[in-house]
Amino acid sequence: MTPLHVLDYAGVAVFAATGALAASRKQLDLVGFLFLAGVTGIGGGTVRDVILGLPVFWIRDHTYVLVCAAVAILVFLGAHRLESRYRLLLWLDAIGMSAYSALGAAKGLTATGSPVVAIVMGMLTATFGGIMRDLLANEPSVLLRPEIYVTAALAGATVFTLSDMAGFPEYASAILAFAAAFAVRGSALRYGWS
Amino acid sequence: MTPLHVLDYAGVAVFAATGALAASRKQLDLVGFLFLAGVTGIGGGTVRDVILGLPVFWIRDHTYVLVCAAVAILVFLGAHRLESRYRLLLWLDAIGMSAYSALGAAKGLTATGSPVVAIVMGMLTATFGGIMRDLLANEPSVLLRPEIYVTAALAGATVFTLSDMAGFPEYASAILAFAAAFAVRGSALRYGWS
Amino acid sequence: MTPLHVLDYAGVAVFAATGALAASRKQLDLVGFLFLAGVTGIGGGTVRDVILGLPVFWIRDHTYVLVCAAVAILVFLGAHRLESRYRLLLWLDAIGMSAYSALGAAKGLTATGSPVVAIVMGMLTATFGGIMRDLLANEPSVLLRPEIYVTAALAGATVFTLSDMAGFPEYASAILAFAAAFAVRGSALRYGWS
Repeated sequence: MTPLHVLDYAGVAVFAATGALAASRKQLDLVGFLFLAGVTGIGGGTVRDVILGLPVFWIRDHTYVLVCAAVAILVFLGAHRLESRYRLLLWLDAIGMSAYSALGAAKGLTATGSPVVAIVMGMLTATFGGIMRDLLANEPSVLLRPEIYVTAALAGATVFTLSDMAGFPEYASAILAFAAAFAVRGSALRYGWS
Repeated sequence: MTPLHVLDYAGVAVFAATGALAASRKQLDLVGFLFLAGVTGIGGGTVRDVILGLPVFWIRDHTYVLVCAAVAILVFLGAHRLESRYRLLLWLDAIGMSAYSALGAAKGLTATGSPVVAIVMGMLTATFGGIMRDLLANEPSVLLRPEIYVTAALAGATVFTLSDMAGFPEYASAILAFAAAFAVRGSALRYGWS
Repeated sequence: MTPLHVLDYAGVAVFAATGALAASRKQLDLVGFLFLAGVTGIGGGTVRDVILGLPVFWIRDHTYVLVCAAVAILVFLGAHRLESRYRLLLWLDAIGMSAYSALGAAKGLTATGSPVVAIVMGMLTATFGGIMRDLLANEPSVLLRPEIYVTAALAGATVFTLSDMAGFPEYASAILAFAAAFAVRGSALRYGWS
């Protein structure tokens, strides 16, 4: 597994966990957990692949779907023990968003060669799963929260694209991009940046 | 026409009717009826086809669009006579959801051969039209209502997939799946299961 | 540049401006302006191309993305000077919607040859960007506002399709369709039609 693969599964798993935590906050049943975990875990990547005209990733490899299902069941069994589910949701969301900003930029760059498209796809992939989760769960959208959010996704996507164009190997660009996005979003959460 | 074709047109027509009833509750004009009937009637199948990489069904056969338009006009002319439009909407929605859980699973299985993808596509197709209707009409989402909803879609999609894998002919699997989904959702509506 | 190209860039630019104005009303930061301008400017056309099975327009020509970014920055720098941003948003939205009703119908007709699909794609392309903007910005949906909206998009798409079928050149059909949609929507805004 390359670093991109690790980021991919990790991104799906933590986004799925945020979907399941949203289901927990709404007191849905197990199937509600599965549904919101699935939409959040694979939603952003689905939109990315459809727009790029690529085969949708989880149609070809349904391991991703099983990862979402496993995460949903684990959260269903354990979520009542967590005191502050919304806070945890925001931090897991930050990890998923950072992973996906790198991954979306990588896929966009491979598919089109255009840095502009790569940056847009990184932002879009990183933010879309969370936006769909908030819309479906009727929660305040991460997009409209005062803390810096889309900016962090933009930072990750831009760092990946610049690093890749500068000739760095893909794994290094992915790690740099993840670190950049997470540094921005994590600081915003920690220090209340807005 | 095979049973799958009957389910297909029936699903589009009843989902379109639920969209038109939502337009009626919001006191929209005729074009609002047409718009919400169209989005609800063909929305779930559109997302299904796009994700599976198939040509979108109503682009190739625009009978589906005309069915939605006819239903919208009928509801526009008659809806003021109905006393409890929201209750009727929920029951029609149950029929459409049940039909689409079978149909989505069938299309997913044909396109990919994967039971996991088939079950996911069945759930997704069955629930997405209703979710879009509720989002656009700013109504409480069926997804968050206390009664069992996504579970019924999951039951239908799973029954179709298992029955098909067990070697039953497609029409029998479709009928069994419709019956399973409708039994679960109908009971939930009738007895207030949650 | 043909009249269709002019309508295309103009539609993207004014829709992007409405997205940026929504960001301004929500007091988002510059990246929030960029995000909402992008989603609104290219969202409707993206859905159109995905449903028609065509390559998404801004993946092939990223000038569209740069137009959205430029508009977002201009609005970010100047929006605080505007007194009634929501009123301006509605009028710009009317221009974008009118342009896109012609353009969506033209693309639908070219891709499928079916007048029914052309009219549906015109309506869909014209209204979807604005619907996504309102959903994401948590504003009252243009779809549910009392003034005539979808009707104007339907008028534009229908005029384009009939004019094209009657043998008029494409530029004339586009101008007629734009005029028809804008006349209906503009009158609705000016005189409070509903």
